[in-house]
Amino acid sequence: MSKTTYAVIGTGAIGGFYGACLQKAGYQVHFLLHNDYHYIKKYGLTIESPQGDFYMPQVKAYQEAKEMPQVDVVIIALKTTTNNILPYVLPWVLKEQGVVLLLQNGMGIEPEIAKIVGKAHLIAGLCFICVNKIGSGHIRHLDYGAIALGEYKNNYQAVGITPRMEQIAEDFRESGIEVNLRENLLLSRWHKLVWNIPYNGLSVILQATTEQIMIDSHSRLLAREIMEEVLLAAKSNNCVIHDSYIETMLSVTEKMKPYKTSMKIDYDLGCPLEIEAIVGNPLRIANKTGVELPRIEMLYQQLKFLEAHNNKNGTN
Amino acid sequence: MSKTTYAVIGTGAIGGFYGACLQKAGYQVHFLLHNDYHYIKKYGLTIESPQGDFYMPQVKAYQEAKEMPQVDVVIIALKTTTNNILPYVLPWVLKEQGVVLLLQNGMGIEPEIAKIVGKAHLIAGLCFICVNKIGSGHIRHLDYGAIALGEYKNNYQAVGITPRMEQIAEDFRESGIEVNLRENLLLSRWHKLVWNIPYNGLSVILQATTEQIMIDSHSRLLAREIMEEVLLAAKSNNCVIHDSYIETMLSVTEKMKPYKTSMKIDYDLGCPLEIEAIVGNPLRIANKTGVELPRIEMLYQQLKFLEAHNNKNGTN
Repeated sequence: MSKTTYAVIGTGAIGGFYGACLQKAGYQVHFLLHNDYHYIKKYGLTIESPQGDFYMPQVKAYQEAKEMPQVDVVIIALKTTTNNILPYVLPWVLKEQGVVLLLQNGMGIEPEIAKIVGKAHLIAGLCFICVNKIGSGHIRHLDYGAIALGEYKNNYQAVGITPRMEQIAEDFRESGIEVNLRENLLLSRWHKLVWNIPYNGLSVILQATTEQIMIDSHSRLLAREIMEEVLLAAKSNNCVIHDSYIETMLSVTEKMKPYKTSMKIDYDLGCPLEIEAIVGNPLRIANKTGVELPRIEMLYQQLKFLEAHNNKNGTN
Repeated sequence: MSKTTYAVIGTGAIGGFYGACLQKAGYQVHFLLHNDYHYIKKYGLTIESPQGDFYMPQVKAYQEAKEMPQVDVVIIALKTTTNNILPYVLPWVLKEQGVVLLLQNGMGIEPEIAKIVGKAHLIAGLCFICVNKIGSGHIRHLDYGAIALGEYKNNYQAVGITPRMEQIAEDFRESGIEVNLRENLLLSRWHKLVWNIPYNGLSVILQATTEQIMIDSHSRLLAREIMEEVLLAAKSNNCVIHDSYIETMLSVTEKMKPYKTSMKIDYDLGCPLEIEAIVGNPLRIANKTGVELPRIEMLYQQLKFLEAHNNKNGTN
């Protein structure tokens, strides 16, 4: 069997890092680029990583989806705020029986993507990684790196572990990436939000790194209390997460190198924030069942205000 | 009967404005000054006000309390964060049967002051005014100006309207200041906090004026929800405030000229914030009776973090 072919839509920190790892392992990877097209076409990709720096002088770079070949697996690593381009991209690049591998955080994303994948399959990957794009074609991997994979079917009906998940896991592991397979994607998404909601939100509101949030006793307690509300939200959505997961997340974050969250990076660049996927949609899911989450609601309101009043000039 | 004599401890926006109004009306007013002593000693006080600008070329200025005469009424218009100087100030300047007029916002202040006033009386004044100090000796009155007076006795036991309150009200009214007399000081303090907690807090966290908070639908809703929690806190402290007061406060704020709150001014100057008096003490009062106020708690935690990480250089 020939090697899986890949495309990466959205070559920022996540897409660039995993795409480069796959290419380094010998997979054919096609990168759809926007702002960085000319730079990466000319100079390739540079990855700094505690697992070893590497440089990829040549990558298959494209400016337009219609110029790309159809591949087995299309990795979507865009910000959720630009998912509106996908109906114009996926049909060109995705094989009819291919797989969309969605590397995005938040809730309520798959039902929208499912509408445009046709007969192809939709797998979501939740990335437990600290990685930043620090310049055109320059990605700095700081810490962690595992992906949790789960397949999406009919409104998050659990489908167990499919052969497609196994295949992708094998490719990624061969590329040096830790993969965990999940039978229940929805539950995995809620697990991920236990981290994403407090740290992405507070990093923007308090203008802080994860380390600053963890050192200050007040913000540390607030992060924990927000996590408790995420567990309530998950429960309202029939996903039970054990209390001890909060301790695990606090402890993981404490051991993390000081990290600027993706939402803080977007804020500093004046880009749109992933508020709806990461905070708004989870909040509305809980509210629908009558569960109140005052802290997450306040976080949402503050983020919406700050995004609307962000004076930094955006380039995206 | 000779005219009441006054001293002002803390000649910022509030102390400077009311002190100047009293002096203009012919009252003897002695100002204790710190940073602005030399400037005000030389150039006096300039007041801009929609009721008419005025200039007070000479004021009785002091650097040390022990140089001041003992007066009938000592107005305390310091930030609560510097109340620790009062035991060294009040004995010099306050007549034995005099009155301390405390113009400070927040909760839990009087019990501390009561310990040092001896046989004198303690009256608190809640100032419904938009006024800023815009430079040494230069005060800009923007809007409103009324003071609500209430006398303090034994842990906020309501004492009704006393002759001392009447006398001060008369002096202030003669000086062009609207005064309302309150039989229940504790209730008045809670009323004031319905405004102070949301607007002082959010103005620092969102880096916003009152106008920006009111125009944005998310922050406006958040301000209202925080007010609802203040009403719960008041109720836990046996002070019932009618729901309609929230509408009144929202509407008053909407009609206000765009205003930078005192806490935002302190934050921008890198000065200590009145977090404990305005947010922490009310929160603890409610928590003691088992009432949870998640939004106010989150506001408190965020403010404590931001104060600790405020990089602006303070001058106070």
